[in-house]
Amino acid sequence: MENYSDIITSKDNPGIRLVKKLMTSKKERMKRQQFVLEGARIVADALKSGADIEKIYVTEEALEKYGERLSDREFTLISGNLSAGISDTLNSQGVFAVCSMLSLGGELPSLKKSGRYAVLSKLQDPGNAGMIIRTADALGLDGVIFSESCDIYNPKTVRATMGSIFRIPVYHDVPSDILFERLKEAEIPSYAAVVDDNAASVSDMTFDKGGAVFIGNEGNGLSEEIQRMCSKSITIKMTGNTESLNAAMAAGIIMWELMK
Amino acid sequence: MENYSDIITSKDNPGIRLVKKLMTSKKERMKRQQFVLEGARIVADALKSGADIEKIYVTEEALEKYGERLSDREFTLISGNLSAGISDTLNSQGVFAVCSMLSLGGELPSLKKSGRYAVLSKLQDPGNAGMIIRTADALGLDGVIFSESCDIYNPKTVRATMGSIFRIPVYHDVPSDILFERLKEAEIPSYAAVVDDNAASVSDMTFDKGGAVFIGNEGNGLSEEIQRMCSKSITIKMTGNTESLNAAMAAGIIMWELMK
Repeated sequence: MENYSDIITSKDNPGIRLVKKLMTSKKERMKRQQFVLEGARIVADALKSGADIEKIYVTEEALEKYGERLSDREFTLISGNLSAGISDTLNSQGVFAVCSMLSLGGELPSLKKSGRYAVLSKLQDPGNAGMIIRTADALGLDGVIFSESCDIYNPKTVRATMGSIFRIPVYHDVPSDILFERLKEAEIPSYAAVVDDNAASVSDMTFDKGGAVFIGNEGNGLSEEIQRMCSKSITIKMTGNTESLNAAMAAGIIMWELMK
Repeated sequence: MENYSDIITSKDNPGIRLVKKLMTSKKERMKRQQFVLEGARIVADALKSGADIEKIYVTEEALEKYGERLSDREFTLISGNLSAGISDTLNSQGVFAVCSMLSLGGELPSLKKSGRYAVLSKLQDPGNAGMIIRTADALGLDGVIFSESCDIYNPKTVRATMGSIFRIPVYHDVPSDILFERLKEAEIPSYAAVVDDNAASVSDMTFDKGGAVFIGNEGNGLSEEIQRMCSKSITIKMTGNTESLNAAMAAGIIMWELMK
């Protein structure tokens, strides 16, 4: 607890400027291959998982509250006002960490034979993306694959994962041709999740050879092209008044059926 | 389209002040028994369902974009700046409506014999609450019951329901003693959703006599008391790295099993 420097109060401090840039700009994140974690729990999760954390910023108040979780790492003190200014939330906990990307981008490695994966295709909402990663982690999928979807290092996505981003492989920026090649190599059937009464009901599937379930865009669903490339179309049969489920909820129900 | 007055630009306009108050204060909502809808789609949904709408405010831009959906209702024009100022979202569509409460509060009526309901007990997050209402509507439950939970008329809840609040009965502020009485009268078994490996797996249930599934608080789950009062405890068996599902996601998976 003794190894801290003076309190930073200025938003013009170079370190703080970098935090702010990494939180708001995907370009900056890509350039530096770093992103920002906000919140005591996720920073603790990252430390536990051995993530490469370059720097931790905390307020004095946060240090008192959460200091134990940050164990013996060096940190830099920042003022409460500064913390509120850079935070992506309304009630900032006052804990930020600059972390190296998990380097699962672009080059998709071999997938697990008959593995079980969620594929997000043109999914855009960071909150949905984060919730899907968290659910996949809880239900025990082998990984989540982002293809033409939102940035997994967006602060809203990272926060919504509740630390699951450090516990389950999340591949991102994966081109769909490479993805289907890897699925074929690993003999994993691909399932397009669609809103279509003629598609097979997800509850009738056995998924005994594993499966990659494709979840599409919030407004437009999966593209025709992706639907054609998938082995089979599946749907959530609903008896209610609306056929509209939130994309993360639809993904959750399908992942639940995939893992049962 | 011809029946509009001058454009309101001042936040001190009495009508606008009321909108703002109704959006931010539960007390004001309770006092006036009114709440605010924001967004073109939900206002159109409300009109379609015959909800009692007292007043509609739109920006000129919104009128051009969404005017058709608002059909032949009278409306009041507001400036874009004013709309951005009262909005609960970052990108306001510029459509607001003052609507009467749906009057399903407090006095819980008789429930459907062997019906299927979701009960939210001390659930606090408005976004979760809204997503549960939307999912219940899509899956075809008979209703959603709020007991000691967040306000269903909070703008964030209303928005997250995507209009489902007008399509499925949502009972609120229901005391738990009255709730259990009604469940007994309608011969509906009550199921406490818990995180506990010893509880029965939700996928082993048949729910052939209907069921009321109780979802608890985001951080603390269901109280001991509620768990004791329920007929049975059920759980979502998970094989992953974390046992933490988002409350709305857990509710969604359990409602899916309830309705299958």
